[in-house]
Amino acid sequence: MSIVAEEKRVLLTIVTERVIENAVIADLDRLGVSGYTVTDARGRGHRGVRDANWDEAANIRIEVVCRRERAEALLAHLRDHYYASYAMVAWLHDVEVMRLDKF
Amino acid sequence: MSIVAEEKRVLLTIVTERVIENAVIADLDRLGVSGYTVTDARGRGHRGVRDANWDEAANIRIEVVCRRERAEALLAHLRDHYYASYAMVAWLHDVEVMRLDKF
Amino acid sequence: MSIVAEEKRVLLTIVTERVIENAVIADLDRLGVSGYTVTDARGRGHRGVRDANWDEAANIRIEVVCRRERAEALLAHLRDHYYASYAMVAWLHDVEVMRLDKF
Repeated sequence: MSIVAEEKRVLLTIVTERVIENAVIADLDRLGVSGYTVTDARGRGHRGVRDANWDEAANIRIEVVCRRERAEALLAHLRDHYYASYAMVAWLHDVEVMRLDKF
Repeated sequence: MSIVAEEKRVLLTIVTERVIENAVIADLDRLGVSGYTVTDARGRGHRGVRDANWDEAANIRIEVVCRRERAEALLAHLRDHYYASYAMVAWLHDVEVMRLDKF
Repeated sequence: MSIVAEEKRVLLTIVTERVIENAVIADLDRLGVSGYTVTDARGRGHRGVRDANWDEAANIRIEVVCRRERAEALLAHLRDHYYASYAMVAWLHDVEVMRLDKF
């Protein structure tokens, strides 16, 4: 039996401003996310609807491993609630997760 | 000739408690891993066999680029030695690495 | 309409020595990168052409989401300008990015 699980999962990575960390984490909790990883980061990008510079802000990088449907629901929520006012970029891709059952 | 190497590699990412960083790194060394990257992180998840909360612990995120077989051997080792006692999640996916030879 | 964009992108991750962060970031700017994320890291690896140890240096992890052709151009530039003198590993893989238009 493989060490990686058969169930498909995606890794969703969200990079945004540290100032909204607590709010975003609370949203993840409320939307049913059981685990996440946050790392501090710095960087640059463009604010979406303002197209102003996002210069060297204090950022965070949030990672969530979950099913694709949940990742897409999280993205839709985050985009609708934060993207107009805060710098945010996000991406996802398929991953194989460590199998935890039956060992 | 492409800038990325033809040989297949995976990126293995392990998120676990910082308290076992030295032990896990020593294991990676012993199991033949030639390079790794560690970043500090925070987060939340469930301890596997205990199913207790893993609340805002001081975590680390370890990344290893290696062959799939080695990644699976590392995962099996880590799961067998740490998963029962420490919070740990891990995932892997294929990556293309920068070609280093012949330039 | 999906929350993820149809356009293909890759995530390019570069791990290198912190001492060249400013130089590398300036190069990314000059080469047309509009956004990047930097996290502090530690780790170990081999310097390529020297094959000396890269022991527990102060490292950075730079992430860029961009088109594949740009990622390959960045990699070629970085390899030509830094790899002989500084520890550097890099990898890329396909990602799906959050759709930002029309919402």
